[in-house]
Amino acid sequence: MADEIVLLDFWPSPFAARVKIALAEKAIKYESKEEDVISNKSPLLLQMNPVHKKIPVLIHNGKPVCESLIAVQYIEEVWNDRNPLLSSDPYQRAQARFWVDYVEKMIYEHWSKFWTSKGEEIEIAKKEFIEALKLLEDQLGDNTYFGGDNLGFVDIALVPFYSWFKVYDTLGYLNLESDCPKFIAWVKRCLQKESVSKSLPDQHKLHEYATELRKKLGLQ
Amino acid sequence: MADEIVLLDFWPSPFAARVKIALAEKAIKYESKEEDVISNKSPLLLQMNPVHKKIPVLIHNGKPVCESLIAVQYIEEVWNDRNPLLSSDPYQRAQARFWVDYVEKMIYEHWSKFWTSKGEEIEIAKKEFIEALKLLEDQLGDNTYFGGDNLGFVDIALVPFYSWFKVYDTLGYLNLESDCPKFIAWVKRCLQKESVSKSLPDQHKLHEYATELRKKLGLQ
Repeated sequence: MADEIVLLDFWPSPFAARVKIALAEKAIKYESKEEDVISNKSPLLLQMNPVHKKIPVLIHNGKPVCESLIAVQYIEEVWNDRNPLLSSDPYQRAQARFWVDYVEKMIYEHWSKFWTSKGEEIEIAKKEFIEALKLLEDQLGDNTYFGGDNLGFVDIALVPFYSWFKVYDTLGYLNLESDCPKFIAWVKRCLQKESVSKSLPDQHKLHEYATELRKKLGLQ
Repeated sequence: MADEIVLLDFWPSPFAARVKIALAEKAIKYESKEEDVISNKSPLLLQMNPVHKKIPVLIHNGKPVCESLIAVQYIEEVWNDRNPLLSSDPYQRAQARFWVDYVEKMIYEHWSKFWTSKGEEIEIAKKEFIEALKLLEDQLGDNTYFGGDNLGFVDIALVPFYSWFKVYDTLGYLNLESDCPKFIAWVKRCLQKESVSKSLPDQHKLHEYATELRKKLGLQ
């Protein structure tokens, strides 16, 4: 019997995009079920993720895997016969997990603050965010990807957030081309891969969505 | 050549205790180097964990592994010939990772708030914390450990915090024996294992340390 794979999805979500990239890297077919996470979560979502009630949820033959980074590791471990997303060396795996954890903290501590700040706060939040991103640039060094020659766990954890960073670039809050040129060059390399480019939301649509959301939150 | 294993440690830290339990479960000898994390971090700590500058750091043959949960997974993967801390089944592994992530969020969102709250806030924080703990009790069900018959990743992530919860019990803020009896019964089973009991701080010493710390923070 073929595997039945369903993704409880939400198109602007960078967390859902992580799972989509991992599935694409492993060439796994799946059905995406779009959730109305803002105003009407489906009974299936509430049943599959009763603790957090959040997308993404990867449902593999009826069994749910919640939390994007856990789903990516699950995909890596189930389909371990192709395109490894993590090294087989424990030390390299620990290093990748360290930087994935760093990305997660950067998003919650610096990016979320940047996104919800107003007035003068935004300048401090912006500075902290750029500093956090520059540390990632140092870590990348001259490598093609964080995973070395191949797209790996850190790349998958980070690259979906570019879509949102770019919205802020367009809105004039960031200037990543000049502030973080190595980061942008890495993003461009990632986007050359269909597994990435086809998993990220349409930039124009996301821009409209984010602008609308900022208005609703009283940020504009 | 024998492995050289050093732990940059701090005796009251539940995060360091996680690593100590995992090392003990795998019967690995190591040297603990106590850090003065409050006022005088060692050059070795700053060199080994330049990003977060925090303990615990596991140094294996000169190479650092930072962040307690990453160190536990590293120990599991390097010494994979004995006492597994995670199932070999990808779905069980994903479930364990989910609950470890839940513990991590519970500590940061509910326990930290509880610990730093004053006056009326403390009652709300206490209620939220107990609710979060009761969900863990439901998840444990009738199992001996979260890992089933054997101590596993979730047990190791959670049990070190008991030392701190107990301080709050003693101070009269919590009453875990009556509020969370299943949790307490599970703690007692864990404490029957030397790997756990010998890795946790002396309760009397921790009580004095915590009382002093609360005074310094203006919480008493």
